[in-house]
Amino acid sequence: MSSNSIGKLLTLTTFGESHGEAIGGIIDGCPAGLEINFDAIQQELNRRKPGQSKIVTQRNEADEVQFLSGIFEGKTTGASIGFQIKNTHQRSSDYNHLKNSFRPSHADYTYQQKYGHRDYQGGGRSSARETANWIVAGAIAKQLIPSIKINAFTSSVGKIYINKPFQSLDFQKIESNIVRCPDQEKASEMIAEIESIKKQGDTIGGTITCVIQNVPIGLGEPIFNKLQAQLAHAMLSLNAVKGFEYGSGFCGTEMKGSEHNDLFNVDGTTKTNLSGGIQGGISNGMDLYFRVAFKPVATIMKTQESINSLGEVINLEGKGRHDPCVVPRAVPIVEALAALVLADFYLLNKITRV
Amino acid sequence: MSSNSIGKLLTLTTFGESHGEAIGGIIDGCPAGLEINFDAIQQELNRRKPGQSKIVTQRNEADEVQFLSGIFEGKTTGASIGFQIKNTHQRSSDYNHLKNSFRPSHADYTYQQKYGHRDYQGGGRSSARETANWIVAGAIAKQLIPSIKINAFTSSVGKIYINKPFQSLDFQKIESNIVRCPDQEKASEMIAEIESIKKQGDTIGGTITCVIQNVPIGLGEPIFNKLQAQLAHAMLSLNAVKGFEYGSGFCGTEMKGSEHNDLFNVDGTTKTNLSGGIQGGISNGMDLYFRVAFKPVATIMKTQESINSLGEVINLEGKGRHDPCVVPRAVPIVEALAALVLADFYLLNKITRV
Amino acid sequence: MSSNSIGKLLTLTTFGESHGEAIGGIIDGCPAGLEINFDAIQQELNRRKPGQSKIVTQRNEADEVQFLSGIFEGKTTGASIGFQIKNTHQRSSDYNHLKNSFRPSHADYTYQQKYGHRDYQGGGRSSARETANWIVAGAIAKQLIPSIKINAFTSSVGKIYINKPFQSLDFQKIESNIVRCPDQEKASEMIAEIESIKKQGDTIGGTITCVIQNVPIGLGEPIFNKLQAQLAHAMLSLNAVKGFEYGSGFCGTEMKGSEHNDLFNVDGTTKTNLSGGIQGGISNGMDLYFRVAFKPVATIMKTQESINSLGEVINLEGKGRHDPCVVPRAVPIVEALAALVLADFYLLNKITRV
Amino acid sequence: MSSNSIGKLLTLTTFGESHGEAIGGIIDGCPAGLEINFDAIQQELNRRKPGQSKIVTQRNEADEVQFLSGIFEGKTTGASIGFQIKNTHQRSSDYNHLKNSFRPSHADYTYQQKYGHRDYQGGGRSSARETANWIVAGAIAKQLIPSIKINAFTSSVGKIYINKPFQSLDFQKIESNIVRCPDQEKASEMIAEIESIKKQGDTIGGTITCVIQNVPIGLGEPIFNKLQAQLAHAMLSLNAVKGFEYGSGFCGTEMKGSEHNDLFNVDGTTKTNLSGGIQGGISNGMDLYFRVAFKPVATIMKTQESINSLGEVINLEGKGRHDPCVVPRAVPIVEALAALVLADFYLLNKITRV
Repeated sequence: MSSNSIGKLLTLTTFGESHGEAIGGIIDGCPAGLEINFDAIQQELNRRKPGQSKIVTQRNEADEVQFLSGIFEGKTTGASIGFQIKNTHQRSSDYNHLKNSFRPSHADYTYQQKYGHRDYQGGGRSSARETANWIVAGAIAKQLIPSIKINAFTSSVGKIYINKPFQSLDFQKIESNIVRCPDQEKASEMIAEIESIKKQGDTIGGTITCVIQNVPIGLGEPIFNKLQAQLAHAMLSLNAVKGFEYGSGFCGTEMKGSEHNDLFNVDGTTKTNLSGGIQGGISNGMDLYFRVAFKPVATIMKTQESINSLGEVINLEGKGRHDPCVVPRAVPIVEALAALVLADFYLLNKITRV
Repeated sequence: MSSNSIGKLLTLTTFGESHGEAIGGIIDGCPAGLEINFDAIQQELNRRKPGQSKIVTQRNEADEVQFLSGIFEGKTTGASIGFQIKNTHQRSSDYNHLKNSFRPSHADYTYQQKYGHRDYQGGGRSSARETANWIVAGAIAKQLIPSIKINAFTSSVGKIYINKPFQSLDFQKIESNIVRCPDQEKASEMIAEIESIKKQGDTIGGTITCVIQNVPIGLGEPIFNKLQAQLAHAMLSLNAVKGFEYGSGFCGTEMKGSEHNDLFNVDGTTKTNLSGGIQGGISNGMDLYFRVAFKPVATIMKTQESINSLGEVINLEGKGRHDPCVVPRAVPIVEALAALVLADFYLLNKITRV
Repeated sequence: MSSNSIGKLLTLTTFGESHGEAIGGIIDGCPAGLEINFDAIQQELNRRKPGQSKIVTQRNEADEVQFLSGIFEGKTTGASIGFQIKNTHQRSSDYNHLKNSFRPSHADYTYQQKYGHRDYQGGGRSSARETANWIVAGAIAKQLIPSIKINAFTSSVGKIYINKPFQSLDFQKIESNIVRCPDQEKASEMIAEIESIKKQGDTIGGTITCVIQNVPIGLGEPIFNKLQAQLAHAMLSLNAVKGFEYGSGFCGTEMKGSEHNDLFNVDGTTKTNLSGGIQGGISNGMDLYFRVAFKPVATIMKTQESINSLGEVINLEGKGRHDPCVVPRAVPIVEALAALVLADFYLLNKITRV
Repeated sequence: MSSNSIGKLLTLTTFGESHGEAIGGIIDGCPAGLEINFDAIQQELNRRKPGQSKIVTQRNEADEVQFLSGIFEGKTTGASIGFQIKNTHQRSSDYNHLKNSFRPSHADYTYQQKYGHRDYQGGGRSSARETANWIVAGAIAKQLIPSIKINAFTSSVGKIYINKPFQSLDFQKIESNIVRCPDQEKASEMIAEIESIKKQGDTIGGTITCVIQNVPIGLGEPIFNKLQAQLAHAMLSLNAVKGFEYGSGFCGTEMKGSEHNDLFNVDGTTKTNLSGGIQGGISNGMDLYFRVAFKPVATIMKTQESINSLGEVINLEGKGRHDPCVVPRAVPIVEALAALVLADFYLLNKITRV
């Protein structure tokens, strides 16, 4: 029932504000005997880390994870895995002006109204710093399902879209550029766009596409624990996400059944894959793909009119170090969440039949 | 952990196949003392019922709900509410040809592969008949939060879209036409489109927009139980749904932060509402709105190539009585799911503060 | 979160009052492909049934279970299993005198105070009729773990105790007498005692011992899902139960560590078994045994002073058909609950290791 | 589903081994706005702390809790509360001899068999050090329900029992002696007994009685979330506990209904309280009391025959610093668990009625 937990069998419960001493979490339900590759976990954290390139926030955080339990002699013991990431470079003074102010399209106002009391520094619990916890758990989840290949990438920034089907992209190239777009030409355009937006003191949205290959047939637990429902749940938990679609998505709504149906090959694969690898809530072994919509970051380096806790009109100046576009750093987060969901269903599927 | 349950405090657990004796469910966590309006529940069931108009399936099912417990002298007692809906007019012979066949883009294949054994009649557990259960629970949820107004409507059929903002629509007109579109002109076009598609023996997709008004500030439980995440989870649980977006959704990804931010009025309301009534996972009191994408129904009245359980190529003829477009009947289902989610958060929010 | 659910992976959610139309439940998480022995289920229901002997309540209820879903062609499909048991012989008039009265040591008063509104007929939701639902689910659970042998029996009635260790008892004899005590001599004494108590219009308590043999090593999930904790939880859910102990139990508190420790044999079995088959919350393969305390039934055939809802003193006459001693009929219920718990842990243990 | 979590609305999820860097946990669902008394938390930790007297283990651990999140300016924010307790004085060398050995009546063998891999230092996850986490959460729970008075005390050590009803005891005296027994005379006997046992290198069991006063009427959520069931679940989660009884408990099984029934006073209180403050799973406002059985600690300072992981017979010498009797230090733990359970039901009860 914890609202800070995700997962049924493989669960992650998290804590932490961006300006507390540490953030962290507890991974429960990870089977015993899993050899942990710590470098791979840190590598995923580095992909999310602030300050990694000129198009992301220039905050400088080490983001080193420290495991406190559940791993012994390099392998999981079946016990809960506690971990923490120290908050090292927070500059609380950046946020003093927010003590009594509500930033537009942030969580300041709703947290204040709901809880009557909030940690105003760096967004408190609503900060995207929380997602570093997800990276840790997702990196372990990936190690639990090594044969499943999860690749997310930036598929649009503002109005610049990759116009190719994912099948024609080379996922090896995702990490070859700082915007994490496997189409090099579009990547250059996207980077230029983000730089231009940044110069304006503004921000821009975008989308991430995630493709999951080599998914075993049978993952997903209807009726209320369908594979796509959990993926949507996970993705909509991510700060700034406004939408989720899988397979044919919103475009599919314009199609006829005779066009949309995925006809079978004799081996059970399908000739087309508008279903996106899921039928009836259960993976069918085809590539699973979905797309996630990110709004532009709400913190802009421009003065905006707003209100304070007294209901007075104020001018809010843009301060702090923020991302002009959240999408490049969100790519590993989408992968981490997808890995958590898939690993959970992988475990659940072990008990499907007598 | 039950995969046939939805909700945290107000939970619905369901059972039933379309060709068994009955479907039904158990509603748990409904507070005691709620006076039940049984007519209102039946009315919602009637909105979903097959055979209600010329553009939906012509199956004829009574869909009368029978309450078995938890209500005494017209009021809830706090005990679990058991209910069932008898399956009256199933024609199992319609499905004999499916015993060993897999319909394209249905759940036949994935159920068979996952469970090794399936009820092939009418889709078994994967049948949308299940959604009648959701209507029952959703109708009770609506009665639990009477001040919150939930209106869903058909916002597109195929390529025919309402091109107006929801604020300019008259929700009173939703039920005035059989496609459940409040824009009368577009409604006529949509109905004509569905009739044409039906004549072709084909099916067509569409979208439903849902607007929830008068939402109290403070509903939603970050981090992993955000309001939008649960709404997405619920909607993606619905058969044929391929996508979910709220507020500015996918369109918002093309915007700049300076355009997208919802500036405050002094009373805490916002001048614009691209946030869609949710900030940081918590309702902010503005209209909550989202859009759901439905693919075209997979069962078409045309012969399709498919395979059987022996991996042989077969010709599958379209039989049975199916919807040419699922959207008109899905409107009350979207509302029911939204009501379940909102009512759950309404209860959760009662314990937010000491 | 549902308070009418038990189990993590194999869950039972129930509904029903003794004087409604039916009671029933939904079993979720039962693996697909389990061949169901319906006779065995009915047989367990018959063991619990009222009217089965002279020492139990003379109510006459058919207690026939009807399965509504989740089983197809005799085997589970992996879908949720809905079932109901019709209430056939209720005599509501038996309870009219209770509309505004609170029976001593019943749930009447607490239900009224908590919910503000209660079904006063036959105890409503607090009726032990609910346990028929548990029998159904437990009987299926038993079929899921056929190699595990669960035997409960009456180990005391009032002050009459079996004075032998369970290892010297012949469990085959449990069903050979109406009190379900494998010690024939003590059984006769217990039956006589119950008959005598019944003649007095009074009731008497007792204990049930449950022995579970052939338990695989490894069942139980520390820290908060230990095997003994779930067994205790299940047993304390049973009406009239006041205590639970396993292994050496309360007696063990008087012992020294040097006496109490179970020394190992070289094969990992232990020379003694004061641990009761569980160490650190996990089964160790030895016989698991525990004891459950039942208070005397609160409904007596004597006039008692009580109060009504106006706070007035009333005389409450003993009416209706009730058990002079709940223990004989509780034996199969204890087994059913134990089976549910064990089957759940059996499933959970499938995902313990990579 | 996490097996390292307890609670429905107020949940505690924990991690940690006694010889890792830290233990800790996450408290989720604590309402916002609770002013935290940090001293009171530390005081409870001190009551549990090793080395506090001559009759407990002489290990020396600081047991200082560090809160990492969820509390801002001294008050809870509604966010999850992360905390940790550093392990400062572990002496891992104490446990080298256990790497391949199984201590009798410990969890070594079952953990090894279940997980195939275990942290053998200090019992790893099965160590009672975990209970320090519970103290922290329980101390916060106590602050959430300040009007409810929870008093646990040692009611027996070995064969030395308090022979008075709890109503005649002065709970103020519990902390006046090191064995935590409010009967001073018996306390002296118990202390002498433990000292004698300790000199023998042996250990002894005992019981703790817990009395909860001023419980509001209405706590508890039938059918499977009854107040006594959750209390039993919590208590049986505690290391060394073998039994739980409440109200009349096992003694009540020998009574007749006419003796056992608690007759009402006109104000709804009862003349007797054999029910132990709970009827039908719901508190009735009378004193809630229960008793918990603790076996003697398994680690004794004597040489015992045992086996190693190769199945060879070995001699195991008693090493390390252990409690001769676990009961005095378990008193605050029983209170902490009781507080967690009560606080959870207190929150759940807020949504019982419309």
